[in-house]
Amino acid sequence: MSCSKRLVDWSLYVITDAGVIGARSLLEVVEAALRGGTTVLQYREKKKTTRGMVEEAVALSALCRRYGVPFLVNDRIDVALAVEADGVHLGQDDMPLETARRLLGPHRLIGITVHNREEIEEAQRGGADYLSLAPVFATATKPDHQTPMGVDGLKKLLAEVTCPAVAIGGINADNLAQVLGAGVDGVCVVSAVLGRDDPENAARTLRRLMDEVRRHRIEKPQ
Amino acid sequence: MSCSKRLVDWSLYVITDAGVIGARSLLEVVEAALRGGTTVLQYREKKKTTRGMVEEAVALSALCRRYGVPFLVNDRIDVALAVEADGVHLGQDDMPLETARRLLGPHRLIGITVHNREEIEEAQRGGADYLSLAPVFATATKPDHQTPMGVDGLKKLLAEVTCPAVAIGGINADNLAQVLGAGVDGVCVVSAVLGRDDPENAARTLRRLMDEVRRHRIEKPQ
Repeated sequence: MSCSKRLVDWSLYVITDAGVIGARSLLEVVEAALRGGTTVLQYREKKKTTRGMVEEAVALSALCRRYGVPFLVNDRIDVALAVEADGVHLGQDDMPLETARRLLGPHRLIGITVHNREEIEEAQRGGADYLSLAPVFATATKPDHQTPMGVDGLKKLLAEVTCPAVAIGGINADNLAQVLGAGVDGVCVVSAVLGRDDPENAARTLRRLMDEVRRHRIEKPQ
Repeated sequence: MSCSKRLVDWSLYVITDAGVIGARSLLEVVEAALRGGTTVLQYREKKKTTRGMVEEAVALSALCRRYGVPFLVNDRIDVALAVEADGVHLGQDDMPLETARRLLGPHRLIGITVHNREEIEEAQRGGADYLSLAPVFATATKPDHQTPMGVDGLKKLLAEVTCPAVAIGGINADNLAQVLGAGVDGVCVVSAVLGRDDPENAARTLRRLMDEVRRHRIEKPQ
């Protein structure tokens, strides 16, 4: 593992999606996103064979290590263990948290996607290391998503959260300030970085906006 | 784990397939197969969510334990570890054997599907606990299978095998004697047991035929 749980910078959490990468090289696109300032990478792949996933995850994991960025695997604990990933991200239909913790041990990161108060409570009781609140806005990347909570819904849910929290769903440069204003530790993006022709610049723009919003908050505390 | 590696009876190795079970209860169909004399069960599921697989595997694993039958999981080492299965069965596109052994430890069973001499050598060098030689005959259960090796091909490949070996692909009561005659330790079936209206009777018939063939071989050694 390349990171300590305590040192994770959740600011710009990028998730892979073969659909938005298209014919480009996954590794090149991800490296561009890392150069642009991605702070966490999640490998999400639902269609490849296990061997194909392990091969990609080995390469991505080594790349993330070079950039000092935590590498997480979506759903597949077998793949995460095989490549010694820094952790996993679990949806509500993935491995139950208690089982995941038993298989991964105390030091690896486990994040959970949550949509409501009940799921937040359950995940926190189970010892999740961070939560991903979803979805803030509608998104084409995950067509089966639940009803978007909006920025107000996000604020309400964040009031229940005691661990690091990121938000996901339709977040981009246009709504980033609003989402950060709700009080998240970072934002998860798929198409807003890896779906762009220039993922490096897309990541850098988001990081710069983020820095501005945060500086503004420090200079003019509400 | 409910079995010792050394005590596995490979005679009738049954593999689940949601496609052949249809609307029936997976648990009931499998229990019928166990009553009929199934000696190894492999849970093979490619479409469900991880949570759905874990739930089914927990139930099947408990059922197999009651019957003293080893319970193996196809491909998914995360699911196998979650339910403390007796082992896994890996195809050539699944987790590499060396990684699988590291994740599963020395005591769990690891079987590999092999199609040719090279794959047999690699699997044996890697410490596979058993091999599944595939496919003997054409089968509709796995439409993308390779060219069937036939009974003569099976005999040739078995000459290279030093660990327990089972055969798979279109095996049923009509060709069982031929396949056993080639020298396998057991046969893998999907539709020939779980696809039948009466899986208990289908399993019992295969076991009875097997006993006859084996007795015949002992009484009249060639």
